[in-house]
Amino acid sequence: ALRAMCADRHEADIADLLEMLSQEERPRFIELLGHDFDFAVLTEVDDTIREQVLESLPSAAVAEGVRELDSDDAVYILEDLDDEEQAEILAQMPAFERALLKRSLDYPEDSAGRRMQTDLIAVPPFWTVGRTIDYMREADDLPDEFYEIIVVDPAFKPIGRVALSRLLRAKRPVPIERIMDTTIHTVRADMDQEEAAQLFERYNLVSAAVVDESDRLVGVLTFDDIVDVIQEEAEEDIRGLAGVGDEEISDSVLYTARSRFPWLLINLGTALVAASVIGLFDASIEKMVALAVLMPVVASMGGNAGTQAMTVTVRALATGDLGGYNRRRVFLREMLVGILNGIVFAIFIGIVAAVWFADPQLGGVIAMAMVFNLFCAGLFGFAIPVILDRIGADPAIASSVFLTTVTDVVGFFAFLGLATVLLL
Amino acid sequence: ALRAMCADRHEADIADLLEMLSQEERPRFIELLGHDFDFAVLTEVDDTIREQVLESLPSAAVAEGVRELDSDDAVYILEDLDDEEQAEILAQMPAFERALLKRSLDYPEDSAGRRMQTDLIAVPPFWTVGRTIDYMREADDLPDEFYEIIVVDPAFKPIGRVALSRLLRAKRPVPIERIMDTTIHTVRADMDQEEAAQLFERYNLVSAAVVDESDRLVGVLTFDDIVDVIQEEAEEDIRGLAGVGDEEISDSVLYTARSRFPWLLINLGTALVAASVIGLFDASIEKMVALAVLMPVVASMGGNAGTQAMTVTVRALATGDLGGYNRRRVFLREMLVGILNGIVFAIFIGIVAAVWFADPQLGGVIAMAMVFNLFCAGLFGFAIPVILDRIGADPAIASSVFLTTVTDVVGFFAFLGLATVLLL
Ligand SMILES: [Mg+2]
Ligand SMILES: [Mg+2]
Ligand SMILES: [Mg+2]
Ligand SMILES: [Mg+2]
Ligand SMILES: [Mg+2]
Ligand SMILES: [Mg+2]
Ligand SMILES: [Mg+2]
Ligand SMILES: [Mg+2]
Ligand SMILES: [Mg+2]
Ligand SMILES: [Mg+2]
Ligand SMILES: [Mg+2]
Ligand SMILES: [Mg+2]
Ligand SMILES: [Mg+2]
Repeated sequence: ALRAMCADRHEADIADLLEMLSQEERPRFIELLGHDFDFAVLTEVDDTIREQVLESLPSAAVAEGVRELDSDDAVYILEDLDDEEQAEILAQMPAFERALLKRSLDYPEDSAGRRMQTDLIAVPPFWTVGRTIDYMREADDLPDEFYEIIVVDPAFKPIGRVALSRLLRAKRPVPIERIMDTTIHTVRADMDQEEAAQLFERYNLVSAAVVDESDRLVGVLTFDDIVDVIQEEAEEDIRGLAGVGDEEISDSVLYTARSRFPWLLINLGTALVAASVIGLFDASIEKMVALAVLMPVVASMGGNAGTQAMTVTVRALATGDLGGYNRRRVFLREMLVGILNGIVFAIFIGIVAAVWFADPQLGGVIAMAMVFNLFCAGLFGFAIPVILDRIGADPAIASSVFLTTVTDVVGFFAFLGLATVLLL
Repeated sequence: ALRAMCADRHEADIADLLEMLSQEERPRFIELLGHDFDFAVLTEVDDTIREQVLESLPSAAVAEGVRELDSDDAVYILEDLDDEEQAEILAQMPAFERALLKRSLDYPEDSAGRRMQTDLIAVPPFWTVGRTIDYMREADDLPDEFYEIIVVDPAFKPIGRVALSRLLRAKRPVPIERIMDTTIHTVRADMDQEEAAQLFERYNLVSAAVVDESDRLVGVLTFDDIVDVIQEEAEEDIRGLAGVGDEEISDSVLYTARSRFPWLLINLGTALVAASVIGLFDASIEKMVALAVLMPVVASMGGNAGTQAMTVTVRALATGDLGGYNRRRVFLREMLVGILNGIVFAIFIGIVAAVWFADPQLGGVIAMAMVFNLFCAGLFGFAIPVILDRIGADPAIASSVFLTTVTDVVGFFAFLGLATVLLL
């Protein structure tokens, strides 16, 4: 009954079912299904669950299940296992398949080489349409579904592509070179998947040839894996900006708490730095308690304005929209936006403070601090991610910490400092 | 020379070129190219630039350029124009094309109907492979590139699909119904593009049939437009969380400042609420200035922990990973994570405060406030987006404001309140 139920369901649906089961039930479910369990299901479950399941299954069963998969899915399943386990599973596979998988696994994490599929269709330019079609009818190790064929020269370097829709509409005796599209976008196997995804997005590619250091064809990347990459990379940026690690919705309390801990610890450090800035002015606060009431407003507005500038910058870097040609203009824009909104909100808060505490001078001081902090927020909101990017760090992950430290410290220092000098 | 340069370049590259020109140069550039300007370029430039360019070109030229495009690209270009301008351009098109575009434009913004392409290949199940191929060779209004054909019944309802790779490998006399895949995923034209994108991601679709209210085929969505949707929707969430509007990197200072203004204004409001909470305890702060020094630490830690919980929740809602079956478990998890990290950081900050101000009781008070605020952060970080989602608001956009208000108010109130009761 279980078999019948799963037989005609999509792997993503079975993956959901698997996620709903308890940790003990999952391997039992897979063993019950036996050969009818499609390991492609494991590409659709959360990472933690995949690792648990793979650890609890005998490695012979995993080796057999993985063999049935497209090479990219096999790599996806194997890459997160620890080395011994990976070796154990690979040892149970035929030499040729093992070699192909190993080659993919040898490429760096998150590279195109990890995401590529090694089953592909490559033909020489002098073949005719008819011969190509006959070849595809007879070959048996083809991918389940494919969208274009790659044209290669004698050294196996890609020189063109033919979309299947083009091939279908051509007459049988026409040679491939007459219908091939020679403006192709190839991807180096060691290219980061994010860069490859930008190429797909930009040129609306359905698939792209992957080549090694000597430009020889080694695999093909397809849009469906790129869709996952785009989702994953956007997710990474969102999480980075919020200080969340690689946790997933199915993770345990302990794992989740641990994944969020480092960020909170860093934040505690920066909050204490900000607190010590306040501590410098404790005498002023004692004399004028309104300072304590108003100081978080200045810091918080700076934090928000800075986050806005930073988020825009981080995303523009990620999507490749920010480059040498517009860096100066955007930098200038961020500072001007900071000053402009700084002036507007300085007037607001100045009036509020002056009325609330019946002290026009206090209003003037907070207004000055506000302009200055919003200007710094724009300046650093832009500069921090750009600098991190240039020194090779991921701007999405580290920018927030530096930024809030700056906006808090500047906010408290400017407001309390100006107040101390001008009011007391 | 300009023509030769642009002739063999991809639209995305010409789009970049166009973006680099000044506002006055852009329409001149397009007029110089004349008929060689591919309007598909306009689908790849920033929204603001697209609108400026379209407004500065004569509507007859736009009508002619848009006619050459795939229908989805035409809609993409026209949809953001104001009604009169749209009508003016549509009026200059032949009736049939106008009707098709109008039908797409009548679907709601960001719906599948807006993103679909109306040129498609639909065949009845009784046709043979050979007849289908011959039809494709002869038809002339086909899309540039396509990946599968849709099989329809006499009422034009989709009943199956055939991937081109499948079609190519089948023999000519085989009827389509023998090779068609009947587990198809159709999309309703009024479905939100985000939901459609989830379907593509989940089932790795290269294209999907779009149907109207009576299940009749009206168009087809393809992966390349979905890739843009995924990027756009992730972007929307990131911007929403950071309080940035729909600004783009090419926008002016004034436009950018205005787009960020509302969020800053709301933040000013919530910061003033938090300030007034502090104001309630001005007498306590006057007696013990250490409270002013430490209070931002409690609020800031709550804000960070809450943002972590909120971000995970917002994304899980967006990707469909959070549903009825796991809502309770995740809710419980967030509260426990809050308490757990709350206890850990309470110990840290308790010790720091006790040592810094040589006051163990102050350490105890800030520790209690920290646990309580991090618990509330987890609770509201989860609950706010879920509630917003249930009442039909976009959780990515409004959650942050409510959340920081809660964590600031709770943080200040708990710390200053406990201190007032227990220490003074
Ligand atoms: Mg899933
Ligand atoms: Mg992975
Ligand atoms: Mg694109
Ligand atoms: Mg794949
Ligand atoms: Mg990455
Ligand atoms: Mg990244
Ligand atoms: Mg662009
Ligand atoms: Mg739009
Ligand atoms: Mg997928
Ligand atoms: Mg399209
Ligand atoms: Mg497009
Ligand atoms: Mg949307
Ligand atoms: Mg959304």
